[in-house]
Amino acid sequence: MTLSIAHLGPRGTYTEQAAIFYVNSLIKKTGIAATLCPYPSIAQSLQAVAVGYTQLAVVPVENSIEGSVTMTMDTLWQLDNLRIQLALVMPIVHTLISCASGLDSIKTVYSHPQALAQCQGWLERFLPTVKLIPTNSTTEPLQYLESDNTAAVITSSRGAQLYNLPILASGINDYPENCTRFWVVSQSQTEADYHISSADASHTSLAFTVPSNMPGALVKPLQVFAQLNINLSRIESRPTKRSLGEYLFFIDLEADTTSAQMQSALEQLTTYTEVIKIFGSYNVLPISPLEL
Amino acid sequence: MTLSIAHLGPRGTYTEQAAIFYVNSLIKKTGIAATLCPYPSIAQSLQAVAVGYTQLAVVPVENSIEGSVTMTMDTLWQLDNLRIQLALVMPIVHTLISCASGLDSIKTVYSHPQALAQCQGWLERFLPTVKLIPTNSTTEPLQYLESDNTAAVITSSRGAQLYNLPILASGINDYPENCTRFWVVSQSQTEADYHISSADASHTSLAFTVPSNMPGALVKPLQVFAQLNINLSRIESRPTKRSLGEYLFFIDLEADTTSAQMQSALEQLTTYTEVIKIFGSYNVLPISPLEL
Repeated sequence: MTLSIAHLGPRGTYTEQAAIFYVNSLIKKTGIAATLCPYPSIAQSLQAVAVGYTQLAVVPVENSIEGSVTMTMDTLWQLDNLRIQLALVMPIVHTLISCASGLDSIKTVYSHPQALAQCQGWLERFLPTVKLIPTNSTTEPLQYLESDNTAAVITSSRGAQLYNLPILASGINDYPENCTRFWVVSQSQTEADYHISSADASHTSLAFTVPSNMPGALVKPLQVFAQLNINLSRIESRPTKRSLGEYLFFIDLEADTTSAQMQSALEQLTTYTEVIKIFGSYNVLPISPLEL
Repeated sequence: MTLSIAHLGPRGTYTEQAAIFYVNSLIKKTGIAATLCPYPSIAQSLQAVAVGYTQLAVVPVENSIEGSVTMTMDTLWQLDNLRIQLALVMPIVHTLISCASGLDSIKTVYSHPQALAQCQGWLERFLPTVKLIPTNSTTEPLQYLESDNTAAVITSSRGAQLYNLPILASGINDYPENCTRFWVVSQSQTEADYHISSADASHTSLAFTVPSNMPGALVKPLQVFAQLNINLSRIESRPTKRSLGEYLFFIDLEADTTSAQMQSALEQLTTYTEVIKIFGSYNVLPISPLEL
């Protein structure tokens, strides 16, 4: 059996790096081999799983500096048949890659908007006059470098290695504690035969809408969790896309859906929510810098 | 007296359109004239006010489809000395502008990531094979059109008019109910002598961090508002940028800070929050499509 895993491409993205870590852990723990399938967007990676082109997708969820990856949240809500199997937390170290002879000759810096934002202080200090150009991924613009000596790309050192391109500066992110959380996602009916952790799930993710816009509409569902002593590790609002001021709430909880507390919480929650979708219970695996 | 107003440029952006509406309302209601100063980013528009280059800035806050403009929230929290004077809600109608002879010959579509995302369904249907290139604003890429007949830009019809460029398709946003909320922002110590509404403020915006990561840490501040019957019209979490899982909460409330309820809420809130910043009380002015 060989699994296929969708991820944001082209080769060398941080998402691919997280997917490779997962693939290596999987074969070590379970003997199951997996191949990687790069897709041009996060939405297309998740759609690939939803329609069964691949068994899994690895997608970024949030970065410690730039926050939520909204495309992941919105697509997960829309697709309706996906389940989170595992979370990975990976340290992010950005490098500046260019065929320029030095920083002085750089005129344009390309990267994903999240990476540009995570290095904005460094860019203002060392390259204050360059043009910043957002791209679909951190590796997509690497193709421009060989033909343009005034261009640079912010990406991972793995990107430089893969495409055999020179690194001009390393560790250029403004905050050293920069990390990104990823989810490993399957179809919801899939039996989890590729779990790499045998422990009980530590987290559950779900999303809901509240029935009406009145004082306390959001407090009530949150009180349910507080009273049952379930810690909320994250809350994120997203527009319902129906009208301005109507939101979905994405919530991560520190509990397994099968626990008695969570069962009771989910039962009470039906009273205070309109639509509720449970994206699954899972463990969180931190990736050490040495494992990359 | 002539006010200067910073906004995201170059000329023809939706933010400029909102700023023009504000300038026209201001002169009609108060006789105060204002000039517009385009800046290359939202952060730079807000910084211009913070250091006194301009008296006001108009910045986008959230779109009904794509959600929060995180650069606005993060910069407002960082700058510390800004106050919201007014909110504007503007309907958004995207058009496709190009010098191509028809849709068939288009190979590349440029626009701000929010605009690309708001038209993704239309793009998949009518231009499924084109390359989508994100840009810093909806008007920045208009410069490419005259020299490249295979390029198109998603922007406002005003952008087409201003730069005298042909419209290939109108109303291409996936959801007709597409609107964006903007804030008019000044320095916090500024006397509000350019209010265009005399009514009591209907909304207050604030942000806070909670002291510790434990069950109920967020529920307590929200309960304060619910018990005082103050409606929460929006909650948005943003990373503190210290470590993954630590958040700021941005909250919009339907009350004026000077009301007895809000005074009581703010007093109670100090017990449950770590740092709290109040960005001001203001009215919300909807812009009708006929006024654009």
